Amino acid sequence: MKKNVINVGLLGLGTVGSGVVKILLEHKDSISRKINAHLLIKSILVRSFGKERDLVIDRELLVNEPIKIINDPEIDIVVEVLGGVEPARTIILKAIENGKHIVTANKELMANYGKEILEAADQFGVDVYFEASVGGGIPIIHPLKESLAANKISKVMGIVNGTTNYILTKMAEDGCSFEKALKQAQALGYAEKDPKADIEGEDAAAKIAILASIAFNARVTAKDVYTEGVSKITFEDITYAEELDYVIKLIALAKDDGNGIDVRVHPAMIPKTHPLASVKDVYNAIFVEGDSVGEVMFFGKGAGSLPTASSIVGDMIDIARNLQQGRSGIIGCTCFEQKRIKSINEITSCYYLLMDVIDQPGVLAKIAKAFGDHKVSINSVIQKQSRGINADLMFMTHQVCESNLRDAIKEIKRLAVVNKINNVIRVETS
Amino acid sequence: MKKNVINVGLLGLGTVGSGVVKILLEHKDSISRKINAHLLIKSILVRSFGKERDLVIDRELLVNEPIKIINDPEIDIVVEVLGGVEPARTIILKAIENGKHIVTANKELMANYGKEILEAADQFGVDVYFEASVGGGIPIIHPLKESLAANKISKVMGIVNGTTNYILTKMAEDGCSFEKALKQAQALGYAEKDPKADIEGEDAAAKIAILASIAFNARVTAKDVYTEGVSKITFEDITYAEELDYVIKLIALAKDDGNGIDVRVHPAMIPKTHPLASVKDVYNAIFVEGDSVGEVMFFGKGAGSLPTASSIVGDMIDIARNLQQGRSGIIGCTCFEQKRIKSINEITSCYYLLMDVIDQPGVLAKIAKAFGDHKVSINSVIQKQSRGINADLMFMTHQVCESNLRDAIKEIKRLAVVNKINNVIRVETS
Repeated sequence: MKKNVINVGLLGLGTVGSGVVKILLEHKDSISRKINAHLLIKSILVRSFGKERDLVIDRELLVNEPIKIINDPEIDIVVEVLGGVEPARTIILKAIENGKHIVTANKELMANYGKEILEAADQFGVDVYFEASVGGGIPIIHPLKESLAANKISKVMGIVNGTTNYILTKMAEDGCSFEKALKQAQALGYAEKDPKADIEGEDAAAKIAILASIAFNARVTAKDVYTEGVSKITFEDITYAEELDYVIKLIALAKDDGNGIDVRVHPAMIPKTHPLASVKDVYNAIFVEGDSVGEVMFFGKGAGSLPTASSIVGDMIDIARNLQQGRSGIIGCTCFEQKRIKSINEITSCYYLLMDVIDQPGVLAKIAKAFGDHKVSINSVIQKQSRGINADLMFMTHQVCESNLRDAIKEIKRLAVVNKINNVIRVETS
Repeated sequence: MKKNVINVGLLGLGTVGSGVVKILLEHKDSISRKINAHLLIKSILVRSFGKERDLVIDRELLVNEPIKIINDPEIDIVVEVLGGVEPARTIILKAIENGKHIVTANKELMANYGKEILEAADQFGVDVYFEASVGGGIPIIHPLKESLAANKISKVMGIVNGTTNYILTKMAEDGCSFEKALKQAQALGYAEKDPKADIEGEDAAAKIAILASIAFNARVTAKDVYTEGVSKITFEDITYAEELDYVIKLIALAKDDGNGIDVRVHPAMIPKTHPLASVKDVYNAIFVEGDSVGEVMFFGKGAGSLPTASSIVGDMIDIARNLQQGRSGIIGCTCFEQKRIKSINEITSCYYLLMDVIDQPGVLAKIAKAFGDHKVSINSVIQKQSRGINADLMFMTHQVCESNLRDAIKEIKRLAVVNKINNVIRVETS
């Protein structure tokens, strides 16, 4: 039953794909000892044969048609690092049909078509592992499915996008604008030329959809996630947060209180004493709250060639160990429940609001009345500064229902004494 | 092949054992769906049938002889929460011989007899899982063996003993003595009546031996670990550490630089900005440094009934999933290398030294000469306070070899101007 060689077909040789090749070369011997076989890359799908590469790779391994990998009967494991839904989805489904085990780093695919992929894996009796799709090198998907499987998970919350965390860290530490911090991130390769997926929260939304699906044993897709990005965060917000002993982070959050799943990505103010507050630059951290374990946190590099490849090769080793036992598909899809997704209007949160108002007696009373009329209870209010006839008012609310807050804001906007609501940011204290 | 019922024999019904029973009862349905079978406790080994218990347990489940569990052909998984080496070792070996899969929380057993147990498991083709033996509810052993398997691990460092961490936190926050903090810990149930194993570092030594064995793929036993406890830490040390922006923690550390394994447990000063500095009370945190993944950290409750039981039931679910596939023993012992253990004299570290000296000109020169003669390079020196004819001198060294430091200390102790060396504490900056 045991094999001497386990053959791998690699789809893609970009940043992450190169990392996979590098680790397999450098750790050839120790990996062989762990799986009692050689883990060999047999073919690599690339777009161009002629491209200059840092890695020394046997040209004979390169192929330019996926079919040469997924139809190769000698290939046991297909590793997909192409990214994006298509053609990855079609290729992976075909590979599964052909009995190949899959390792993928593709969050978009798993967050949108996870059900289809995992059901196909179940049907054809193969493993699909995707540890690298969330949190780069941080082990989080396996722990959620395995070591923490004895828990009813009530909450998953984390910083899962390195690009925006780098930008927010820079804004806070260097006092620069969002635009300047974004340019720095791009110069360092932390942000893409078209940074939309990162800064608008789409990347984080895909990741929290994957985590929520596993944590709550119910399918959550990327489109279920209420998503706001970081582009509206100003240096002013960061300064005010700082004064209140808070920091602003792009938070991905999923809660299950038994009445539905609250799943969202948005900037949030969190207390400086919160462990997520000290997660800086491109690091990621994910908190999990379970009824037995309490709070556990996982921290590390959420992206990059080698950290991501670390998770991919870890998954390949897992599959290889399974293959050596002549079995597979131990876990598969764990979404055996159906749960309702809450609308953003149903959630409750504390909120920070910054308003530009006319600096005259009675203004606060009018705004406070509007809040009160909509059951929005105020925790604190600070008049930040007077600028001639105008002033900045900053409110922090208690836990209130988002729909009530939105109604109050509508009414406040109509008040003649309010020039503008500069920003509304949710506050996560626990 | 698939079973409808997987039967469990539980050895021990103390704090952790009761937690296991509680989780299995409360999460009966969700666990059944995860493993497509019922996970049933068939027998529980107890010392006394008559004891009052918080749990409602069918008296017919209770047995008082281990043989009734390990010889029961219907029992698939034996869960050991007795603690201590014997009789746990003998019972587990016998259970393995009888084809039972094992889940244990027993750090003493695994740190001292891990090789014997895992080799027996290999011989008889069963699984032995021990996630709960380190870090309570924190997933760390599985991630090290699986998701991080693609890494060459160079370092594991953490806070793995909640009792001492609670004591050190109390001393720092309330400004109390070691003795008072220990009494508080005992009153809260965080420390045992005989607290030796915790405060002298033995518990942490067993845990780091287990982690080092897995991280470095080479057997490290508890007796290989250089161990110092926290009982000599004074409030004075904590105050001086605070002034220097450091905190004192009981650190368990293992490094592999290719020339041998440096493995030790001792109090250490760590910078306040270090992520371990903010790990308070009974929480644990473990850092792992791998060549591909960089730094990853795992954080959570390191002890307690339910957190520890969370890891145990997680392991039971893993084994049950394996059983449903008709296989076992995928990973087994991963110590396929032999590595030398370094003696404490070979290690290098920075050190904090507090001395009580005669307050007169030339004293510093004499001490500095003794350091210099033994190649101990001083980073900073602060005269802390003058008390009439005596004064406190505090030194921080650069990275130096421990044997050189020890030689320097011997010589300094002989100086007539030095009344006493109050304390020497290693400093871990990264």
